[in-house]
Amino acid sequence: MSNTAILLIHCPDQTGIISTVSEFLFFHNGNIIDIDQHVDIDNKRFFMRAEWEIDGFNIPPENIYTIFMNTIGNRFQMTCQVQFTTKKPRMALFVSKMQHASLDILSRWYSGEWDVEIPLIISNHPDSRPIAEKFGIDFYEFKITAENKAEQEQKEITLLKANNIDFVVLARYMQVISPSFINEFPNQIINIHHSFLPAFPGAKPYHSAFKRGVKIVGATAHYVTEDLDAGPIIAQDIAHITHRDSIDELVRKGRDIEKRVLSQAVWLQIRHRILPFDNRTIIF
Amino acid sequence: MSNTAILLIHCPDQTGIISTVSEFLFFHNGNIIDIDQHVDIDNKRFFMRAEWEIDGFNIPPENIYTIFMNTIGNRFQMTCQVQFTTKKPRMALFVSKMQHASLDILSRWYSGEWDVEIPLIISNHPDSRPIAEKFGIDFYEFKITAENKAEQEQKEITLLKANNIDFVVLARYMQVISPSFINEFPNQIINIHHSFLPAFPGAKPYHSAFKRGVKIVGATAHYVTEDLDAGPIIAQDIAHITHRDSIDELVRKGRDIEKRVLSQAVWLQIRHRILPFDNRTIIF
Amino acid sequence: MSNTAILLIHCPDQTGIISTVSEFLFFHNGNIIDIDQHVDIDNKRFFMRAEWEIDGFNIPPENIYTIFMNTIGNRFQMTCQVQFTTKKPRMALFVSKMQHASLDILSRWYSGEWDVEIPLIISNHPDSRPIAEKFGIDFYEFKITAENKAEQEQKEITLLKANNIDFVVLARYMQVISPSFINEFPNQIINIHHSFLPAFPGAKPYHSAFKRGVKIVGATAHYVTEDLDAGPIIAQDIAHITHRDSIDELVRKGRDIEKRVLSQAVWLQIRHRILPFDNRTIIF
Amino acid sequence: MSNTAILLIHCPDQTGIISTVSEFLFFHNGNIIDIDQHVDIDNKRFFMRAEWEIDGFNIPPENIYTIFMNTIGNRFQMTCQVQFTTKKPRMALFVSKMQHASLDILSRWYSGEWDVEIPLIISNHPDSRPIAEKFGIDFYEFKITAENKAEQEQKEITLLKANNIDFVVLARYMQVISPSFINEFPNQIINIHHSFLPAFPGAKPYHSAFKRGVKIVGATAHYVTEDLDAGPIIAQDIAHITHRDSIDELVRKGRDIEKRVLSQAVWLQIRHRILPFDNRTIIF
Repeated sequence: MSNTAILLIHCPDQTGIISTVSEFLFFHNGNIIDIDQHVDIDNKRFFMRAEWEIDGFNIPPENIYTIFMNTIGNRFQMTCQVQFTTKKPRMALFVSKMQHASLDILSRWYSGEWDVEIPLIISNHPDSRPIAEKFGIDFYEFKITAENKAEQEQKEITLLKANNIDFVVLARYMQVISPSFINEFPNQIINIHHSFLPAFPGAKPYHSAFKRGVKIVGATAHYVTEDLDAGPIIAQDIAHITHRDSIDELVRKGRDIEKRVLSQAVWLQIRHRILPFDNRTIIF
Repeated sequence: MSNTAILLIHCPDQTGIISTVSEFLFFHNGNIIDIDQHVDIDNKRFFMRAEWEIDGFNIPPENIYTIFMNTIGNRFQMTCQVQFTTKKPRMALFVSKMQHASLDILSRWYSGEWDVEIPLIISNHPDSRPIAEKFGIDFYEFKITAENKAEQEQKEITLLKANNIDFVVLARYMQVISPSFINEFPNQIINIHHSFLPAFPGAKPYHSAFKRGVKIVGATAHYVTEDLDAGPIIAQDIAHITHRDSIDELVRKGRDIEKRVLSQAVWLQIRHRILPFDNRTIIF
Repeated sequence: MSNTAILLIHCPDQTGIISTVSEFLFFHNGNIIDIDQHVDIDNKRFFMRAEWEIDGFNIPPENIYTIFMNTIGNRFQMTCQVQFTTKKPRMALFVSKMQHASLDILSRWYSGEWDVEIPLIISNHPDSRPIAEKFGIDFYEFKITAENKAEQEQKEITLLKANNIDFVVLARYMQVISPSFINEFPNQIINIHHSFLPAFPGAKPYHSAFKRGVKIVGATAHYVTEDLDAGPIIAQDIAHITHRDSIDELVRKGRDIEKRVLSQAVWLQIRHRILPFDNRTIIF
Repeated sequence: MSNTAILLIHCPDQTGIISTVSEFLFFHNGNIIDIDQHVDIDNKRFFMRAEWEIDGFNIPPENIYTIFMNTIGNRFQMTCQVQFTTKKPRMALFVSKMQHASLDILSRWYSGEWDVEIPLIISNHPDSRPIAEKFGIDFYEFKITAENKAEQEQKEITLLKANNIDFVVLARYMQVISPSFINEFPNQIINIHHSFLPAFPGAKPYHSAFKRGVKIVGATAHYVTEDLDAGPIIAQDIAHITHRDSIDELVRKGRDIEKRVLSQAVWLQIRHRILPFDNRTIIF
């Protein structure tokens, strides 16, 4: 992994942005290794991701954001993030009883596929504690009831903040997250929905898919918003099925897709390749 | 193409059906070249497709249905069809203005991919007449208005019956078919819907898909029933898309899937491989 | 999981086999829940898989094979296996340094996706010992050199036999298995090759794929035979790639496919759905 | 379709190219609607495609190439093309006996999917003459024998030049093109190979695939080079197959993939999205 900085920008579209930004990086001796841009014509919105080598760049990392905003960002009304590949993002994993998705994530982390830190696992059930222990990760159980939900979520938020968590992954976590929680982590909570949204939102999508007689099942990774199962979609994939597939088989095949789609979304998140805007995502 | 007979059966499930049917074919000197069965456990329903060589079979083709029903079918309360690969099915093609789907079907027919006859094309617009003429197929224009719909459909039915049409393909035909028409051709009208149903039913699904920011577009071939866009699904497929794809690009990619899915459904229909039951399809 | 017996047969093709076999199961009060057959026309070979409920079947499980062979199998020159879903197959896992494939297999086993027992892991490196310990599985290290290979493999065979191993999975095990080893486990050793065979056999297929500029990478699960990378193929899948994908990215995407394809092959093996013949596989 | 200009560049990589090029377009009042770049790190080669609106751009179209090369291109040792979306590319179609691929191309052209002109079809057989006539396209038959090949190809080249042909599509054209022909149209002849190259090069790949027992068949669109079936790959795709698929079925499924992959390559060619280099392609 090279030592690079990543700039993620969006702003009202106008002529000359790419030129101005790449000129800025060039002027400060930045060797650009990847640049990608997109214009949302309907919204007249410009999006850009640039990645360049830190070595030789003549602005200290801690000053890049401020200097960029002062010289360029503010002028173009940019919303801007600066990220560094040397800084491993910190992920919190939320699970319930089903363990296929969380085991897949932990396996990818453990085998070194991802540059990520997973300081803690949070669950509303005790079932996943042995897995957390296997992988040496702190496990916190927060039982959720209608009565204690607000209080428990507040404790979770405090714990996440104390651990400097950058983003949350709901790996088949079977509790609805409250708006107040979501607002603390806007576009930082990734959920895997076991359906090709917007078909079959809600619970039991495999049963609905079976009943409707579809020939395809899918899964959707999306950011969590207040509108249930309707947040910005990050990744989707499908598997073909036939009349021979029982609901159990749909579930088995579906779990493979869930793992694949969720891990794709997490990888994009870790690599700072997602820019959400207007309930859609730009994936660089 | 070999000279074979095809038996399509469904009936209440019970022990011994496969044995009884294959014994019957064996007894009458039928060389089975393909047999496939399925049990719908929820509905306790048995489904079977058997294909065997006509040569050497000691029941004349025209008597197979009656003899089979008398000796076996009635005893097991079977619904049964007997088809012959030597008898080319007769298809009627319904089109509106868009021609990509109908051109694909005509190309497949013309290049000999399918053992099918296409005696006529019906449209509510004159635009496809030149295509029909290119391929030497009779073209009939039935303009449809709210006032004349019942009358025009009646003429269409008469025309289809006079031409011994076995099944109808709606190749992006933009008129809703009335129940009285559908009832004349139950599970014999195939439609292509330009979406992965049940997501985005109705008109303009590509616009809806774009707005929702999905990462996949799809198409669905299904039998037409009175419940719009909700009939038994025959085939589905998808294409991956990104934020870079404009609505025009979704349409372009979608048309490829429409053609692929529709042609797959037509091929299954021609080969007598579809058994619809309880709003789902068994695809042998 | 229901309590069923599975019959896997192949024999020279002739009329009446399906009828005779299903008659036998029917006569002995077997409730068939799945039957599937295939005829290899070139080789005039018949293949069949039947699954039926043990409850009510009036032949004791331990006698089924003998009685079936005496009454039917020998007459039709059948090669035949009888398997029971109550008997969990026993798998041995072979690994080297890379752990993504073995972690995926252990995760699927641990989360209860598969009805399989994994009594031991064998490796030519110590690296995977911590993983084996995490999952509570015995770990054996057999360092392999040109000099000790025959001797070490003999020890491995002895260990596998002592543990009643039914099949071996090479999860990116980087040693060639000797013919003498293979002969002890014919069509019982599953390998994952990190390429779409027969393209790019041998080592470093991702480098070869990159250099050739292909737009797809794949993986192949196959039975190990004496002819390296040329045994019967069980499952294959691919991922689309672009010019943007570095070799590292090919490796990352490829590993996902390796895991998916290998797990599909293992699942088919566990469910007794594979019949290899003439260097090809029938997958029921 | 908007009125745009497209710049395709490659040159030795160095810092500041993107900045310099976008500055140039900005300075001349070009509204960039798409920009994409790629660096081949192994070859230290920079690739770029920029598309901008002609309206308002203050260099006349006919001068853009010269002015760009004089001010920027020569300095960076660029190889450069300038294309205009208002100028429809002119395609020549080469066919033999099989018509599925050429019918698909003609259908896409006829239905307005592509902004392309097809002034002529060339064949070594008379079979496709009726199709050419249906679509009103000039048809030329050049019978090829070992003796007359050089002479006939020379006539074909003359005909193509006289018709200002921009690129040639071999739609299952069953003759090897000679190096002298290829040199007249470098990276301008697109072939569809009915296999997932590099597996199964040469003739009869479906037979080879069947014999090897693969679970996937594919197709490859590539530029024709002197090295048979080894030119730069433009697009590839696959279909899953099973033991049930006869060679005839492989052919049927394969033809669908051939059509899909070839039409994708042609679309990329028409939209000036392909940059071949070092026997690989950059697809923007």
